[in-house]
Amino acid sequence: MLFFTQCFGAVLDLIHLRFQHYKAKRVFSAAGQLVCVVNPTHSLKYATTHCAAAQASTEQDILPPCHHHEAVHDPQLVPCTCPLFSCPWEGHLEVVVSHLRQTHRINILQGAEIVFLATDMHLPAPTDWIIMHSCLGHQFLLVLRKQEKYEGHPQFFATMMLIGTPTQANNFTYRLELNRNQRRLKWEATPRSILECVDSVISDGDCLVLNTSLAQLFSDNGSLAIGIAITTSKAHSSEAEM
Amino acid sequence: MLFFTQCFGAVLDLIHLRFQHYKAKRVFSAAGQLVCVVNPTHSLKYATTHCAAAQASTEQDILPPCHHHEAVHDPQLVPCTCPLFSCPWEGHLEVVVSHLRQTHRINILQGAEIVFLATDMHLPAPTDWIIMHSCLGHQFLLVLRKQEKYEGHPQFFATMMLIGTPTQANNFTYRLELNRNQRRLKWEATPRSILECVDSVISDGDCLVLNTSLAQLFSDNGSLAIGIAITTSKAHSSEAEM
Repeated sequence: MLFFTQCFGAVLDLIHLRFQHYKAKRVFSAAGQLVCVVNPTHSLKYATTHCAAAQASTEQDILPPCHHHEAVHDPQLVPCTCPLFSCPWEGHLEVVVSHLRQTHRINILQGAEIVFLATDMHLPAPTDWIIMHSCLGHQFLLVLRKQEKYEGHPQFFATMMLIGTPTQANNFTYRLELNRNQRRLKWEATPRSILECVDSVISDGDCLVLNTSLAQLFSDNGSLAIGIAITTSKAHSSEAEM
Repeated sequence: MLFFTQCFGAVLDLIHLRFQHYKAKRVFSAAGQLVCVVNPTHSLKYATTHCAAAQASTEQDILPPCHHHEAVHDPQLVPCTCPLFSCPWEGHLEVVVSHLRQTHRINILQGAEIVFLATDMHLPAPTDWIIMHSCLGHQFLLVLRKQEKYEGHPQFFATMMLIGTPTQANNFTYRLELNRNQRRLKWEATPRSILECVDSVISDGDCLVLNTSLAQLFSDNGSLAIGIAITTSKAHSSEAEM
């Protein structure tokens, strides 16, 4: 009986995913870009102060809550920078991608231009939407976070981090684009290195910031489509070389 | 003696303006665009709830405080839509520009692409920076407002209104662009008609919205340079005709 219930649940999930994918394709059909549906994950970091009951995540069931490493003791080791969890893992930069894929089940997409379709934008803060993006020979981590910087006023923050060093990050420019109902919002910047903390990028506000009202204007049935493009920035790389 | 003091004040103002203009030209020198320095004006509308002592405006001295017209009784008449003041004036659309220029001393600039340099961004909310922009045979009103939508958390809102009807407004697209320190933020939308209320556009959040931290990232010594471009939107005009 339990087996049939689980099967039915899986079929419902597939139908829901298919519907989200169809919606995304409809929005970005002209661009012909790869669309990736990204489901939200409630952040365990904030579980002690916020009610996590509204959101059930498979990852939450797998990973035990643990303490976050504030500093890396060995300078050659990188702590797990996945913003979803307070994860005790640390390792070399080269194995961060496989750790994020295997332990945190974060998907990785190929292509210079993709569409990130974040579902269920109405879920209460704090919530994260995360994906890895592989292009131009490097891997990037896109983080969309719903957070209450000021109590009672949730905002959306989107940023891109390079899974590499700050010097490598200076060679790239990323663009996030929202486009709906004759409105367009574009944010372009140099990605930060994953060695920097995503939390500080967001608290500094050095990223794409959306109020709830703007997010609603760009959303379609509770899903927000963000076009992502990464390019090499020759100007930045020459500055880095100086 | 009073005459000499006023003359000295005027000379100081000119030096300040010249300095601001030089800064703006430095920021946008490559683009070769017309730079307009826009000084802030404290909103009289909010004078009853906020302290207006921090900002002295010549316009405030000239115009007596008065009640705002909530509705237009004669459909052919437009109330004064200048967001600076609760002004009792009403008149036909054709004379709104001359009213704004003569009574409220709002400057008007020519050109498809200009740079709006808002000075003294640190001033407390509520503060407005306003200019008129003439291009493509029409006049537009650009409003940048610093407002505390949530108490203690001032935000900046920028929008463009057409001094014309909503049908005419549908024929245009405006773009606001911030560009500094390898970061770029662009907002593109159809301008609203001046017949709609600028307050409701801002309270709906249907405009470029900046947190204080983002505004600081894009500011240079307390001045924020916003590149403005207006184009005709054929797609929108064909939609309007349908």
